[in-house]
Amino acid sequence: MTLKVSDIGEKELVRYIISHSSDITPDDTAITSFKDTNLISTCDMLIQSRHFPENMTYFDMGFKAVTVNVSDLAAMGAQPLGFLLSIAIPKDFNLDSFKEIIDGVLKACEYYSIPLIGGDTNEASEIIMSGTALGFCDKPIRKDTYNMGDLIAVTGDIGLAALGFELKSFDNVYVKSALKPKARIEEGLILRDFATSATDITDGLASELYEIKKDNFGFMIYEEMLNISEEYKALAEKQNLDYLDLILHVGEDFELLFTISKDNIEKLPIDFKVIGEVTDSDVVELTLENGFVERVKNKGYEHYVSE
Amino acid sequence: MTLKVSDIGEKELVRYIISHSSDITPDDTAITSFKDTNLISTCDMLIQSRHFPENMTYFDMGFKAVTVNVSDLAAMGAQPLGFLLSIAIPKDFNLDSFKEIIDGVLKACEYYSIPLIGGDTNEASEIIMSGTALGFCDKPIRKDTYNMGDLIAVTGDIGLAALGFELKSFDNVYVKSALKPKARIEEGLILRDFATSATDITDGLASELYEIKKDNFGFMIYEEMLNISEEYKALAEKQNLDYLDLILHVGEDFELLFTISKDNIEKLPIDFKVIGEVTDSDVVELTLENGFVERVKNKGYEHYVSE
Repeated sequence: MTLKVSDIGEKELVRYIISHSSDITPDDTAITSFKDTNLISTCDMLIQSRHFPENMTYFDMGFKAVTVNVSDLAAMGAQPLGFLLSIAIPKDFNLDSFKEIIDGVLKACEYYSIPLIGGDTNEASEIIMSGTALGFCDKPIRKDTYNMGDLIAVTGDIGLAALGFELKSFDNVYVKSALKPKARIEEGLILRDFATSATDITDGLASELYEIKKDNFGFMIYEEMLNISEEYKALAEKQNLDYLDLILHVGEDFELLFTISKDNIEKLPIDFKVIGEVTDSDVVELTLENGFVERVKNKGYEHYVSE
Repeated sequence: MTLKVSDIGEKELVRYIISHSSDITPDDTAITSFKDTNLISTCDMLIQSRHFPENMTYFDMGFKAVTVNVSDLAAMGAQPLGFLLSIAIPKDFNLDSFKEIIDGVLKACEYYSIPLIGGDTNEASEIIMSGTALGFCDKPIRKDTYNMGDLIAVTGDIGLAALGFELKSFDNVYVKSALKPKARIEEGLILRDFATSATDITDGLASELYEIKKDNFGFMIYEEMLNISEEYKALAEKQNLDYLDLILHVGEDFELLFTISKDNIEKLPIDFKVIGEVTDSDVVELTLENGFVERVKNKGYEHYVSE
């Protein structure tokens, strides 16, 4: 039988590549020792039909192409150095729409203080943007360097974008989170001095927790600490969606998920929310509001996987 | 009237982006001053239906995704630091073919001594590979820093790939140049100490000459010095193609085009071919084998332009 890539899924493909290159850092970005510091580099491709909701503006598409890449720098606590953009568009694409995309890219670069330093243009049947963010960091925050008993925290509310993708209207915080996400670059720079580990939430909280999990370590998340509003629960129900499913398994908020020692948590000078702790359970668990404890499924957004 | 991108062409789109970002170096790569040296970065996207001939193997596609990016490092005389690959493939893509592509990427990274340090995988309707090459260089070779009277030279034969794309058979040097091009990274490192300017030939000799042309400077190329073989001319004629058109206006050889002072040319320790000189004519000209001089057209491969 001939295997298709959908038979093994995206994570296995990435594992195949990593297992064949000893130079790949298994973290949010590449880390290259250079001069007396580390060069931090990361690339992420966005494809119109896969990554952009229909109601997204061209400006927001351009902005997001920068955000997804800068978010990886943020997760390492890296100082931005430069952004490169490879963009492909159809031959008959409207020139003003192209300028809107570029405007979004430039505004995002300004917002994150990362200069647009280069790129490439191409022709394709739909909009494709592949960004590369470069930065540097003396001591990058790794994603799996937490200790037993550390607290687990996030930089903001999670699950907003997940709900936003399901809602049609334009004027609420959920849709705004889905269409205009922002990377936490400032918070990442501060976390360097406080966090024991960090990653950004792109594929959903559950998926990221499994991504950073080490043998013999486990995570306990408390639903109560997630501070889910009644409005959120009601809106999810109206869409026939399980609100915990949205929060745990969708992502796209670009918030930072980090761990921190109990001693350091009081000193941390950014907005954050503690949502759980590192345990020795060797599993990822959730304590529901009703007191019951359930195992969290390793499920998140993954390309290639047949649904 | 609503303008389409095809109404203005790729070069105008690039000019639009450059004019809106003061941080873009108008050269083969970005140059970012960092620590006591320069970080050199470049990205190039390859799309199956646009960039890969039908008879190209998956291995060669992967190899070429590295070559096109490393070639830009070579043109700057940069020392390679790392390569990042964003790859998108269809959901039902054959797993072994995916592995062949990755094998090509890894072999190319080994060949150019540039470690594969990171990447991203995605789903798309065809194969898309966006590479980013990182390097460094104390004194990058710029593309327009030549002087009046400098000699114009290339690192090898040009036009081989152009002819190769037109030929069906597998067992000749032309098809090999088209399907298995190699970047001149070693030559670029040596040229740092000898050349007055350099760029790589991707869109054709004519296009690159116009790309590097400064006001009041011109170029005279001598057909005789191109050393075009009788075999080349005969094969082109058999395909009903003008051999000078292939050599001047197609490209894809990834040879380096460089300028060098007459004093330095004897000392240059690489294989090269002098093909002309920098003049004060303010135009790009070709002296034909029969002695006639003609103006070279500014025509090369460009995306978006209606044909």
